[in-house]
Amino acid sequence: MLNCSLKTSEHLPMHLPLDRTSTTPLVQQLTDHLQTWIDQQRLRPGARLPSIRALARSQGVSASCVIEAYDRLVASGWLEARHGTGFFVAERKPGLAVEDAQPWGEAGDGSWRQFREGHDELLKLGCGWLPSSWRAATGLAQAVRQVSRGNPQDLFDYCPPLGLASLRQQLHKRLAQLGIAAGPERILTTYGASHGLDLLVRTLLRPGDTVLVENPGYYNLYNLLRQHQVRMLPVPRTVEGPCLATLEALLAAHKPRCLFINSLYHNPTGTSLTPKVAYRLLELAREHDLRIIEDDIYADFQEGPATRLATLDSEQRVIYMASFSKTLSSSLRVGYLVADPALLARLAELKMVSGIGTSRFAEQVVGQMLANGSYRKSVQRLRVRLGQHMARLLGQLEQAGWQVFCEPYGGMFVWACVPGRDFASLERLALEHDVLLTPGSAFDYQGTASAWLRINVAYGQDSRAQAFLQHAGRPLPI
Amino acid sequence: MLNCSLKTSEHLPMHLPLDRTSTTPLVQQLTDHLQTWIDQQRLRPGARLPSIRALARSQGVSASCVIEAYDRLVASGWLEARHGTGFFVAERKPGLAVEDAQPWGEAGDGSWRQFREGHDELLKLGCGWLPSSWRAATGLAQAVRQVSRGNPQDLFDYCPPLGLASLRQQLHKRLAQLGIAAGPERILTTYGASHGLDLLVRTLLRPGDTVLVENPGYYNLYNLLRQHQVRMLPVPRTVEGPCLATLEALLAAHKPRCLFINSLYHNPTGTSLTPKVAYRLLELAREHDLRIIEDDIYADFQEGPATRLATLDSEQRVIYMASFSKTLSSSLRVGYLVADPALLARLAELKMVSGIGTSRFAEQVVGQMLANGSYRKSVQRLRVRLGQHMARLLGQLEQAGWQVFCEPYGGMFVWACVPGRDFASLERLALEHDVLLTPGSAFDYQGTASAWLRINVAYGQDSRAQAFLQHAGRPLPI
Repeated sequence: MLNCSLKTSEHLPMHLPLDRTSTTPLVQQLTDHLQTWIDQQRLRPGARLPSIRALARSQGVSASCVIEAYDRLVASGWLEARHGTGFFVAERKPGLAVEDAQPWGEAGDGSWRQFREGHDELLKLGCGWLPSSWRAATGLAQAVRQVSRGNPQDLFDYCPPLGLASLRQQLHKRLAQLGIAAGPERILTTYGASHGLDLLVRTLLRPGDTVLVENPGYYNLYNLLRQHQVRMLPVPRTVEGPCLATLEALLAAHKPRCLFINSLYHNPTGTSLTPKVAYRLLELAREHDLRIIEDDIYADFQEGPATRLATLDSEQRVIYMASFSKTLSSSLRVGYLVADPALLARLAELKMVSGIGTSRFAEQVVGQMLANGSYRKSVQRLRVRLGQHMARLLGQLEQAGWQVFCEPYGGMFVWACVPGRDFASLERLALEHDVLLTPGSAFDYQGTASAWLRINVAYGQDSRAQAFLQHAGRPLPI
Repeated sequence: MLNCSLKTSEHLPMHLPLDRTSTTPLVQQLTDHLQTWIDQQRLRPGARLPSIRALARSQGVSASCVIEAYDRLVASGWLEARHGTGFFVAERKPGLAVEDAQPWGEAGDGSWRQFREGHDELLKLGCGWLPSSWRAATGLAQAVRQVSRGNPQDLFDYCPPLGLASLRQQLHKRLAQLGIAAGPERILTTYGASHGLDLLVRTLLRPGDTVLVENPGYYNLYNLLRQHQVRMLPVPRTVEGPCLATLEALLAAHKPRCLFINSLYHNPTGTSLTPKVAYRLLELAREHDLRIIEDDIYADFQEGPATRLATLDSEQRVIYMASFSKTLSSSLRVGYLVADPALLARLAELKMVSGIGTSRFAEQVVGQMLANGSYRKSVQRLRVRLGQHMARLLGQLEQAGWQVFCEPYGGMFVWACVPGRDFASLERLALEHDVLLTPGSAFDYQGTASAWLRINVAYGQDSRAQAFLQHAGRPLPI
């Protein structure tokens, strides 16, 4: 029995008797104790909770444990997360127990941690998006205001099934620049790429089907496939693309329905497909009648030619997907996919049935930015800035003793580790420097623990990141 | 063999040999002929097609047939629909056959007709939304601009899993006014109510499950349940709510998983639940452990008290849903649902997995309009205007010899028919007056033909609607 005392910001000492011999997980014990304190008004409405680091230190638990407990208490309404300032006791008692409210699944794998409110004190070094300060604030705000003054239909009306015609016309031109021949009638807009994946999984796959996924890879794809009870076969991602030997063996043995792949700036490793691997991959796909779903959401981080399966594909075997969430706005939720007409018809039907289409307003905003060139200019700026940050970070990582999976030539991510350090050790150190990591296990298709980290280069030059990266790279004390 | 000749706007006579003895449906023959004409450049790029009415008359086919053919040609890229002016031959040949492109499902039940581009010449008397000119144009445009100048997070960042906290706080207050006790932690935002229904169906039901639906009812719910292979048992909608005798018999015989219901201003009949039926319904639900999904998207068209199941429910048996698509904007896609915490957690997880949440921007816009009172004022204006239009239309329908299912005391819809006239006859007449109807069959759970029409009162005073309604009500020539 451990009995720690801690003063809250109101100087009330907190005694939270955690039992480390109990079968009840520590995070649940901590959550229960905090709820009891609030319920008994020992922590009064409006009181500020200790910082994650402070509570973790005083209770001798991991910061992850505190984060999870606070998140559960926010979810159940006992705590409120206030932007940039921390966690506070809610003004009103929610009248429900915390165990009834865990709005982010039983998995508890930390996947959604970066999306929750209330961790603004921490630098999200592992997150999958660019800082707001990097974004095309003026261009987007202008486009929004322009649409607000334009055709009232865009403010009020439903969107047609395939998406707004003017946006699809712009996308058609953009795709032509990438060497992908797709008329507007072959393009379907979606709420970002994840929505596109959901439509595809629901349309193409049934529970029990087998598919190929890259490993490591996009955790939300894994979540989606698991949710749909689809069996995943992992293909290791090498620096040149998916491991072809494994792929070939799995194709022969399991006849999977499709392969999900990032060609360019793969998430999380930052690797890109080489032309040689791409050609062989398409050959194998033809031989085994494999469908390929190419998720190309990092496309615009690349200037000039790149190796893409949809560009090489002459048989409509590749379903191409992209989005504006990474390069323009994650808030607007605009993405799209390109597929053969028969499949597109089924996807459009499902899109209508499951939500009556996408947002006409958001699509008009993006369409205008594509049409007036402000999108093009803003991604040019992003590319330069990301390139500079990537180069600097790769140098710093090397100097500090980190190991990188590859040296990406662009994009947002570096996949890196420190030989000899596991995730728990890295996370402890990160939180000491107010840095929040995303566990490498989130990028494993089975959630297996990993010492590798996805580092978002856009946050790499922040002083907190710098301190953590320097510190973590030093040899461990013996 | 019928051989009609017709001049296009370029005065080119069109010979479209339709074979009425063929097993090929007329709509497909018409589509094929038009495609051939375009392909052979007998109709040149940019040429305007005849109006729907003109082509229908000259070819001796129904207007529905022409509408469907034009829609297919737009979908496949052979035609372009230009806002308000009609259909034109596309500038660029799409290089795919029309039969490959029908992006709105095989059903062909006309459900999505009102959502497609290109029928702006016609008055959509059967549609499910208010005219743009009725909407809160100033208030919404102002809110949009305010958000564009506010916190950059709202322009750029992802939304938390449950939805934007500030919006959920406003929704909590709004629900309290309706007598529904639901803290923000029990509210999940969605992309409109249809998305909420989709999340619920995916979470609560499995293929083969049985549910109760009101009949007539919301066609997209039927589509969704069919898509999910859920078996529907129809409960006739009476003027007082669902028929309790049928409901009780179905509960006893089939043990359905849940009931989907509109309490207020039911779509399409305009009827509202009486207190007596509501109490008995909840009693039956308790006896048979039935879950109820109350879709209350017309809630704000009612001022003051109304009978709602979620208000009466003390057991969290009712899942409550609503949206801003009808009262504010269908373009922004903002809705929400209220459920017990355990279910809400599963729904939030699915919401993230299937699309990484909703649009933070759109939720901030709606949240601001709720907070600053502009939403409240705009729905007050809508209520008054709808009330006036409803009263006038009901008088006109009676005078013209129409029969109404009930005289709704508010909302958008009247469910009406002309004794002795079937849908085909009504549709023919409607198109002569440039009015597009939604077939009554769309509101039947099996798509059975119906002579009843959903009339959207907001369009009822348009001169085209007036001419049609007057004309249709007259005794048929013997």
